[in-house]
Amino acid sequence: MGNFYKDNDDLRWYFEKGLDWDALVRVTEHEFRSPGGPKSTKEAVELYLEIADMVGQFVADEIAPHVARIDREAVIFEKGEARLPDFLQGIFDRIKQMELHGLCVPRELGGMNAPLALYYLTSEIFGRADVSTMAHHGFHGGMALAALMFSIREGTTEVDPTTGEIQKTRFENVIREIARGESWGCMDITEPDAGSDMAQLRAVGEQDEKGDWFVTGQKIFITSGHGKWHFVIARTEKAGAPDDPFAGLKGLSMFLVPTYEDLPDGTRRRVVTLERVEEKLGHHASVTAALSFERAPAMLIGKRGEGFEYMLTLMNGARVGVGFECVGLCEAAIRTAEEYAAQRRSMGKTIDRHEMIADYLEEMRTDVAGIRALCVEGVFHEEMGQKLGLQLKFRGDLSGEERKSIEKRAAKHRRAARRVTPLLKYLGAEKAVEMARRCVQIHGGVGYTTEYGAEKLLRDAMVMPIYEGTSQIQALMAMKDTLGGIIKNPQRFVRRGAQARWRAVSARDGLEKKLARIQAMSHQAQQHLIMRTASDKLRGLGAVLAGGDVPITEWADRFAKNWDPKRDFAFAMLHAERLTRILCDEAIGEILFEQSKKDPARREILERHLERAEPRVRFLLDEITTTGDRLLAKLGHELGASHREAAE
Amino acid sequence: MGNFYKDNDDLRWYFEKGLDWDALVRVTEHEFRSPGGPKSTKEAVELYLEIADMVGQFVADEIAPHVARIDREAVIFEKGEARLPDFLQGIFDRIKQMELHGLCVPRELGGMNAPLALYYLTSEIFGRADVSTMAHHGFHGGMALAALMFSIREGTTEVDPTTGEIQKTRFENVIREIARGESWGCMDITEPDAGSDMAQLRAVGEQDEKGDWFVTGQKIFITSGHGKWHFVIARTEKAGAPDDPFAGLKGLSMFLVPTYEDLPDGTRRRVVTLERVEEKLGHHASVTAALSFERAPAMLIGKRGEGFEYMLTLMNGARVGVGFECVGLCEAAIRTAEEYAAQRRSMGKTIDRHEMIADYLEEMRTDVAGIRALCVEGVFHEEMGQKLGLQLKFRGDLSGEERKSIEKRAAKHRRAARRVTPLLKYLGAEKAVEMARRCVQIHGGVGYTTEYGAEKLLRDAMVMPIYEGTSQIQALMAMKDTLGGIIKNPQRFVRRGAQARWRAVSARDGLEKKLARIQAMSHQAQQHLIMRTASDKLRGLGAVLAGGDVPITEWADRFAKNWDPKRDFAFAMLHAERLTRILCDEAIGEILFEQSKKDPARREILERHLERAEPRVRFLLDEITTTGDRLLAKLGHELGASHREAAE
Repeated sequence: MGNFYKDNDDLRWYFEKGLDWDALVRVTEHEFRSPGGPKSTKEAVELYLEIADMVGQFVADEIAPHVARIDREAVIFEKGEARLPDFLQGIFDRIKQMELHGLCVPRELGGMNAPLALYYLTSEIFGRADVSTMAHHGFHGGMALAALMFSIREGTTEVDPTTGEIQKTRFENVIREIARGESWGCMDITEPDAGSDMAQLRAVGEQDEKGDWFVTGQKIFITSGHGKWHFVIARTEKAGAPDDPFAGLKGLSMFLVPTYEDLPDGTRRRVVTLERVEEKLGHHASVTAALSFERAPAMLIGKRGEGFEYMLTLMNGARVGVGFECVGLCEAAIRTAEEYAAQRRSMGKTIDRHEMIADYLEEMRTDVAGIRALCVEGVFHEEMGQKLGLQLKFRGDLSGEERKSIEKRAAKHRRAARRVTPLLKYLGAEKAVEMARRCVQIHGGVGYTTEYGAEKLLRDAMVMPIYEGTSQIQALMAMKDTLGGIIKNPQRFVRRGAQARWRAVSARDGLEKKLARIQAMSHQAQQHLIMRTASDKLRGLGAVLAGGDVPITEWADRFAKNWDPKRDFAFAMLHAERLTRILCDEAIGEILFEQSKKDPARREILERHLERAEPRVRFLLDEITTTGDRLLAKLGHELGASHREAAE
Repeated sequence: MGNFYKDNDDLRWYFEKGLDWDALVRVTEHEFRSPGGPKSTKEAVELYLEIADMVGQFVADEIAPHVARIDREAVIFEKGEARLPDFLQGIFDRIKQMELHGLCVPRELGGMNAPLALYYLTSEIFGRADVSTMAHHGFHGGMALAALMFSIREGTTEVDPTTGEIQKTRFENVIREIARGESWGCMDITEPDAGSDMAQLRAVGEQDEKGDWFVTGQKIFITSGHGKWHFVIARTEKAGAPDDPFAGLKGLSMFLVPTYEDLPDGTRRRVVTLERVEEKLGHHASVTAALSFERAPAMLIGKRGEGFEYMLTLMNGARVGVGFECVGLCEAAIRTAEEYAAQRRSMGKTIDRHEMIADYLEEMRTDVAGIRALCVEGVFHEEMGQKLGLQLKFRGDLSGEERKSIEKRAAKHRRAARRVTPLLKYLGAEKAVEMARRCVQIHGGVGYTTEYGAEKLLRDAMVMPIYEGTSQIQALMAMKDTLGGIIKNPQRFVRRGAQARWRAVSARDGLEKKLARIQAMSHQAQQHLIMRTASDKLRGLGAVLAGGDVPITEWADRFAKNWDPKRDFAFAMLHAERLTRILCDEAIGEILFEQSKKDPARREILERHLERAEPRVRFLLDEITTTGDRLLAKLGHELGASHREAAE
């Protein structure tokens, strides 16, 4: 089946030209000071290309031809344990032989110390064959790195200030075990009554008189929840004020819970019960487990009440991971559709020559390049931000000047990562579903049968907009960050709008002009939302002020603080998804435009994106500025009525 | 589970107020002249309401609670026969007891002689519980009526010119058998290499020296293909000129082929082989069969070469049927989503109070009312057109004046049915998929498991945009009819545009104004497409004329005739789906506006539709007028290149 790396021009462009490997290698390889590491960026990148090539070949030869079987056999749940069927286990044995589990784990802990970016780019290749195999694979190395990051954060890792090598780390055994491919871990957050709303988590962490910790509670939808190591979020403190919906987040703590207890007789006993493995629409090679903890011995990570913060440190990376998973699935959907359309004849020609189908296929090709651009942007900034942060933490030789410069760079990367992460998760997931659906449709009748791969892609895709934060949560985050940024720095916002409007008329490059028009419309949408939000807030404030219990000197302060998300942000929340779609089109346009400045060959994809994005953004702006009031009035009215009823 | 008729206000509105039952009853009951029939519209409608009520209760009590089981058990294929599992068979036994198979079959042939509209409205109720049960059920009565219609068309049915009762009909045994629920039929069209492109059909009908007909060939994707009676399209004449892609349609003929041959010893032998039953993503209670015919004895229906025409007489009705199936599925998706959203709490309130989810749910409610309005419009006009046609054929007592008036009415109904049918099939199917997808999304993680009904709705929905003519085929039909109508009567087109623009500024009613704005935009989109089509045609013609082989006197004629769909319609074909979406929004707006004139209670749904439709139509018009040229140039260029290559 060829080679899934070599046959993918757009992906290869990032390896060969698009990605700033030099920056990544320098932060990853500690400026080449580590004795066992590569001595130059060139040396390092040659290895990465070899790995990509190897993964591309392996996935094409040993996974892709067998996906129907992998899907059909699924994971097996019996006698309270989940296991992979033999064929799939064979694939993971091969992955283990290739030592891919430790790809990004530091060399001194048994890994290859490759940049995260390499892992993510290869995960697209896995995802193109089978997203559930990719997800299962991702939970190996990912959890080893989580253990390392957590230990660094809590201060139980020691690093050589010169070479950057790790000398000691709290969960070394876990990391090494996972890097060897002998066990794996999972992240246990969701509960039956707490999905997106983590403040409602009820699993409890308790300490006995000796100071030992135990976790008790239920967790559901745990990907690879049959693993040996559980990072579990549990409540150690009571929730705050009952009228603050986010108060519950503050009482959460992070624990590491081993699945088994070693008994004196040398055997082991499960202390985390695997209640069931979910029967899902798709994603069949990945275990989705329901777990129960009954006073399971646990190790507290960091301090009590920091659980949510710890979770956040992994969240961006996990979402970027899903982004690449979506890119892989999109790529599969496009290629499956293209291949079928190129051989199926109708009305005297192959159906890829039919205008409507050609339009679908071209839009899919354009979209996947856009999502990939977002994802690469996301992982680059995420990794740079993280690793520059580690430099600041561990390097002893930095001058005050250097330190300041690194701090500034790190902050810039973190901002950039924070901006694109919800966008890539949102758009990747939505497009994965859309493209898989189109792939089925282009196949016509045979697309609906299990014989062709199309329907399997749709079944797999449907979980993307749900896990690692639903599309709706991503949209809310993107909206709140965007509007929050305006409130923090209104001058900058005004300036950006003026610049966009100016470039929309004065730029000499037609594509730059088009991009500026999109930016100007995005600006207009944001302005509309912020004005509406501010005026709703003022109105709410007016009601408080009318009560007369607020001294006039506090009015300005009241406006700046105490935003009630339920009341003040209603209009922006209603349109959050529409704004997010605009932000995606804008960000993709900006990234592709920057790429095209460095490599004119990228202008073609930029042009295709902008052509489709412009009317789309105009439409979303139209919807934001002309609809929604009637529905909000109705919601407010009904809410009022139900409050009155409840009070009666 | 309540009553699926009584609990559905929008559906009940059509029974109680919205549908012109009087017109339907008069044409169906031959102006009350039939001795065994009802004596007034009131009497007839009372019976229909009782039937709706009975079906609503039956479906809610006996099908809806068991859909997970129906989906799981699926149809069984063994020893060359397909059968229903016992539980599902029990449901069909009950349907038989209720005599629903003969609902629309004339009383004198063993049925209830109810209007088609009643069958279609109740089929929504079936579809809300399980679309595949509905589809399977629909193939009983539907095929009995097909047999009757075919016989009438070929002139082998005799009707009493006074009472309208059928005195003799060619396939009486088939009709009676099916009406009793003892057997059923199917329509065998699709073949492995001929789906939408029926000109490519290869199954052959041959006559032996005695004049007996035999059918040989393969058919696939045959819904209820395990039935006893096959209406089969097969080729009896060679296709026409190989460069005319539609020439193949003219050599097709329609046959009735019994599945079994009765042997002299009283046993029977299969002559139509059931090769396999497809394993599908969903729609599990409905058999989708692959069949092979090896010199199967057949009865020719009508004349040789009329097969495609015969198929067309059923096509509209079949598509309206899928429309109602989609409405049922949409209704299920909405209710499942609403119910879950009303009990699932997040961030301090139930999720149906979250603005984005509330927006989804309201849009779904608005859309389903729109699709139902289109479907009811479709079946009303289809049935009126058909039955007025039968009056013209069979009633002996009509004066010339009356005849003319009925002809005019019938033509008007046929035009209206032809207009909305591709729209309701297109929009119903697309929305069924969209709503099922949203239903999964609103459920979050549990929506992805098989435990809840959400994912099953999506699996079932995915076939809707594929069968009975793909969405793309519907869009092409709607586009061609619309542009063809303009070419036929350009004055009318210009007048309609002027009226819409005038009402958009002068109407006193705000909703009428909004509707007029949508109509004006639709007009503009059509104008753009027709202008582009005409100019492309002129350019193509220019090339011919430049050759100098066409006398100047033939130029006008050349422009009016010989349209080459491949060359002249490329731009309109590229945008056919966008135009179709505009036409759907416009038609729904018009229908709801007419309803609101008769019943002011309908203004609310009209308002909701128009609010969402206006920016949507503006967007589609924007896309039609600003995109597509680049892609067409590329397609044309590539096509040119491949032609050159082929020539070399």
